Amino acid sequence: MNPEVRLKDMGMSLPRPASPVGSYLPCVQVGDLLFVSGQLPMCDGRLIARGKVGADLSIEQAQEAARQAILNALAQVAGMIDSLEHVVRVVRVGVFVNSAPRFTDQAKVANGASDLLVGIFGDAGRHARAAVGVNELPLDAAVEVELIVQVRR
Amino acid sequence: MNPEVRLKDMGMSLPRPASPVGSYLPCVQVGDLLFVSGQLPMCDGRLIARGKVGADLSIEQAQEAARQAILNALAQVAGMIDSLEHVVRVVRVGVFVNSAPRFTDQAKVANGASDLLVGIFGDAGRHARAAVGVNELPLDAAVEVELIVQVRR
Amino acid sequence: MNPEVRLKDMGMSLPRPASPVGSYLPCVQVGDLLFVSGQLPMCDGRLIARGKVGADLSIEQAQEAARQAILNALAQVAGMIDSLEHVVRVVRVGVFVNSAPRFTDQAKVANGASDLLVGIFGDAGRHARAAVGVNELPLDAAVEVELIVQVRR
Repeated sequence: MNPEVRLKDMGMSLPRPASPVGSYLPCVQVGDLLFVSGQLPMCDGRLIARGKVGADLSIEQAQEAARQAILNALAQVAGMIDSLEHVVRVVRVGVFVNSAPRFTDQAKVANGASDLLVGIFGDAGRHARAAVGVNELPLDAAVEVELIVQVRR
Repeated sequence: MNPEVRLKDMGMSLPRPASPVGSYLPCVQVGDLLFVSGQLPMCDGRLIARGKVGADLSIEQAQEAARQAILNALAQVAGMIDSLEHVVRVVRVGVFVNSAPRFTDQAKVANGASDLLVGIFGDAGRHARAAVGVNELPLDAAVEVELIVQVRR
Repeated sequence: MNPEVRLKDMGMSLPRPASPVGSYLPCVQVGDLLFVSGQLPMCDGRLIARGKVGADLSIEQAQEAARQAILNALAQVAGMIDSLEHVVRVVRVGVFVNSAPRFTDQAKVANGASDLLVGIFGDAGRHARAAVGVNELPLDAAVEVELIVQVRR
């Protein structure tokens, strides 16, 4: 099934792709790989999740933030290759979780990102992943997510 | 020499590959590159190294943890491509060290991973590397290691 | 215009490539991709920027450190492929910022790296990027930068 249709069936849609803050690009294609820049949980130009997971935010709120960052990443992908139908598979997802001291459920937070990708792309959405905690993120975002995606050339 | 034989000569063997916790994959192949998910120092289903390097663990203990994470990563590689003999070379290693305040020997910890890879694969085990400290890791693991490996198609 | 000439026009030059500390390589080529190891702001064998950005260093000092790390990365690239003229494009830049509590301007620090790459390579220097904060870095460096670069085969 078409990924955009699945997204719609889940009651979601791709946001308008945001411009990067600085002299870099939202994504770069080399061969059939698309490297997507680190995405924050922005929605309509504002961060929807700020602060440290495990103190300022719950796991559920952080999962929601991870989903929003994934939507922003996919908006960049769709902006580059016209449609998510040209995605062959998601290759790697990097998840950085702004973590309060002693918060060690980064994998659960990252599942918010992983489950959404599988919901949208099915088996083609299953990916390699690295999820780690960090002490600070840009703009005090709760999570940052980056992707490598294989696309039809 | 065969990597599995070298491993045996060093008194080590590959563990049974562990299942990822969540809807992602232990590794994904695209072209001749294999992206291996972040691996923790698990052994027989339990973490063998927990806490902050420089406070709860010594450098030597963290190096041992890095070696265990590498064995787990290679178990995933072998599970995917049948034998480590099909590894052309190790391309990149990412090492995240759960670091106590003022612990700055992340490179020494990462050498535990790097030295083992060279021991197993010889020159083909020499890789590009990024080693950084982080304030928290999943399950309070002492280290997390991810790999990109080139394999015979 | 030749990247080495642009660099000279900006009053800069490539340092001598430093040897990695450990059994890894400064960069590894696979196909037309070059993976460059994490680089610190070393100059003539010494770190020029140490400590936490937002406490021990200003944003401007951290940007200068990011530029120095980029010069070191490009020295490794030039050492591998003879000349920066063989760079097709910069694909991805990873920036790790040694961050004081509540420092959230990692993107501004990373712009030091990004702007220099665009200055040297023009549009071919525009890249995907992930910039995050971390609590500790090797040798207490203020920043660590890693690159993926596409090169002529």
